Amino acid sequence: MNLLVGQSGGPTAAINASLAGVIKAGLDSKEIGKVYGTVNGIDGVLNDELVDLEKFRDEKLLKLLIQTPSSYLGSCRHKLPNLDEGRETYEKIEEIFKKYDIGYFLYIGGNDSMDTVDKLSKYFAEKKSDIRVVGVPKTIDNDLCQTDHTPGFGSAAKFVANTARQLAFDTKVYGTTKSVIVLEIMGRNAGWLTAAASLANNENIKAVDAVCLPETVFDKEKFLSKVDGVMKEKNFSIIAVSEGIKDSEGNYIGENKTATRKDGFAHAALGGVGKTVESWISQGLGLKTRSIELSTLQRCFSVGASKCDLDEAFEAGHKGVELVLSGETAIMIGFNRISDEPYKIDIVPYKVSEIANGEKTIPIDMISPDGMEMNENFIKYARPLICGEPDISYTDGTIDFVTR
Amino acid sequence: MNLLVGQSGGPTAAINASLAGVIKAGLDSKEIGKVYGTVNGIDGVLNDELVDLEKFRDEKLLKLLIQTPSSYLGSCRHKLPNLDEGRETYEKIEEIFKKYDIGYFLYIGGNDSMDTVDKLSKYFAEKKSDIRVVGVPKTIDNDLCQTDHTPGFGSAAKFVANTARQLAFDTKVYGTTKSVIVLEIMGRNAGWLTAAASLANNENIKAVDAVCLPETVFDKEKFLSKVDGVMKEKNFSIIAVSEGIKDSEGNYIGENKTATRKDGFAHAALGGVGKTVESWISQGLGLKTRSIELSTLQRCFSVGASKCDLDEAFEAGHKGVELVLSGETAIMIGFNRISDEPYKIDIVPYKVSEIANGEKTIPIDMISPDGMEMNENFIKYARPLICGEPDISYTDGTIDFVTR
Repeated sequence: MNLLVGQSGGPTAAINASLAGVIKAGLDSKEIGKVYGTVNGIDGVLNDELVDLEKFRDEKLLKLLIQTPSSYLGSCRHKLPNLDEGRETYEKIEEIFKKYDIGYFLYIGGNDSMDTVDKLSKYFAEKKSDIRVVGVPKTIDNDLCQTDHTPGFGSAAKFVANTARQLAFDTKVYGTTKSVIVLEIMGRNAGWLTAAASLANNENIKAVDAVCLPETVFDKEKFLSKVDGVMKEKNFSIIAVSEGIKDSEGNYIGENKTATRKDGFAHAALGGVGKTVESWISQGLGLKTRSIELSTLQRCFSVGASKCDLDEAFEAGHKGVELVLSGETAIMIGFNRISDEPYKIDIVPYKVSEIANGEKTIPIDMISPDGMEMNENFIKYARPLICGEPDISYTDGTIDFVTR
Repeated sequence: MNLLVGQSGGPTAAINASLAGVIKAGLDSKEIGKVYGTVNGIDGVLNDELVDLEKFRDEKLLKLLIQTPSSYLGSCRHKLPNLDEGRETYEKIEEIFKKYDIGYFLYIGGNDSMDTVDKLSKYFAEKKSDIRVVGVPKTIDNDLCQTDHTPGFGSAAKFVANTARQLAFDTKVYGTTKSVIVLEIMGRNAGWLTAAASLANNENIKAVDAVCLPETVFDKEKFLSKVDGVMKEKNFSIIAVSEGIKDSEGNYIGENKTATRKDGFAHAALGGVGKTVESWISQGLGLKTRSIELSTLQRCFSVGASKCDLDEAFEAGHKGVELVLSGETAIMIGFNRISDEPYKIDIVPYKVSEIANGEKTIPIDMISPDGMEMNENFIKYARPLICGEPDISYTDGTIDFVTR
């Protein structure tokens, strides 16, 4: 029996580390024949576009894969039809699986991809097939249910925190000119990555003074009053704003009513909240304000990644293969936190049906009473995830990588 | 006699390395009593705000200073009046210099700051004063005359190149969806930093397919035709666009006619060119297009800096002190390139009067015939400047620094 692995959804800096973990465990296993990758997620199965991953027996290449930005196998945003509505899609997948003698399918992705794992494993169960399907999580949004956190979040969080810290130094250089940076950060309904900007602060610098989260109602007056108070005491401030903040009526602040760009899962593409908040601060408070949209940089930066994140991502992929071989199916690999200090987790299986299409937002006990700062509970939770610097290789100044 | 050092203009990732070089040479010299820093450039002199830099005898602290983002001493954008129009400003500076027994003044900055060095050294010469003034260059724009290149450019160029490479990987993941990124890069009249995006390319990936420089006329039709041709062959492309591109009539493409933000030197603040070019591509060619403005990230990122740049910046500062002690004044430290392979430079003095207020743009022999790509001459020139990775220290995932 052979193993197939795929990657789906938006890339992260750690998604190839999980792929490397799957490949390593697959190639090392005597029970597995070949290790195949599907190009562009489930689309590669439907298009009969599988690649043999044998070349990664070369340990140097496997190490390069870990630091390669984005998704080595390509990605897709393909929502499978419901079982009772689109059986021909499932039959096509089953046919390709038979053609390549696939017994194990590992899918690396976020909540939408876990929906694919859930549906596929249900289909195979219903058909009494032996094919087993396991999900390996990734998302910079950190919004998957059950698991303590998600591979990809740590590196994105580290990028956001170090960006906020460095921007704070850049912003405070002109002594007498008060200046505010509005940092627009990804996260539609969960503010984990926006909250991570707080990790820029330590006892020697308060870089980030406010975080605006989708979990709380954005109250323009309260917000401007907070910024006003902060800027009476300081000459600079970084304000971290999630793309998904909403007003008291539930309308996205950043929503462009005329936007037509939608992804395959019909989420409205957000943007523009940074510029909106920038204009409120500059006009409402008369402060020099600049908004910066981190855009896709926050999900593809392997330069400055978190070693904790890359290591865990690799282990999650590896564990996925171990568990699929032990007979598990319809699960997602997750992290169960044992302790904060010292930081310790167990890598465990969760039922994918309890994760697919769910969303985990920030609990209220991690947020300050005014709703605009992260408290110690959050810092304790998030700090370990950004720790450690991986050994990244460069040639003549640019990051090394491996391509298909 | 004591030494005074200041930093001016927009920060870079290497400006503190030059400061560290000045401090190290100053503290090590037996001819120099105290080493002072002026807070916020020449403003700190006028406001009598000098700090003693004695603490940097601690080598650990000096090493931290090198990696600290932005300008440790703060900055200003203060253009000194002409000598015949504002003598009281110069007299005030002289008074403070006397108060602190300053015999040597080193000013780290770009072309506007070299104007300060020029004027001050002329004032002291005219007064037959022994006070000597030396400029140490910095600018991410790389637009200072005479010198082969400028400290700060290498690290910014490396950030741009690695950003473009990583974005290329992020952009190409969706196999069938063709997608273009417009990367808006700083550089008002000189396109060096925009050109540096080309360093993202190597024999295994062509990340950047076009660069739009202020040195060439931006011809919308020719540009769209080029992008169209590229996207017939590929499914992704990064287009690097300088904030300072102009049409055939010399109008900035990105100029916001209603913008009121101007810096102290009366340059119009540019912005918006990325969005403009994005809309031309998406509407003109019907391609999925996203513009990303690198904004101030490109000048403050110490994470991922160039070791060549930080080392040279340190040496430039150090050499500045050596030369000021040997009797030099009215000079700027610069780099004279001896060879490309192996890369070798000499650190030499240039007359600051020949540099102040000048601007060095990209020579035509580094640009492709169509004006939209960089050729081998540029790569040979720029590649060595981004090489090497400095040993950056972190605590719990965020970059270490030192503050005043």
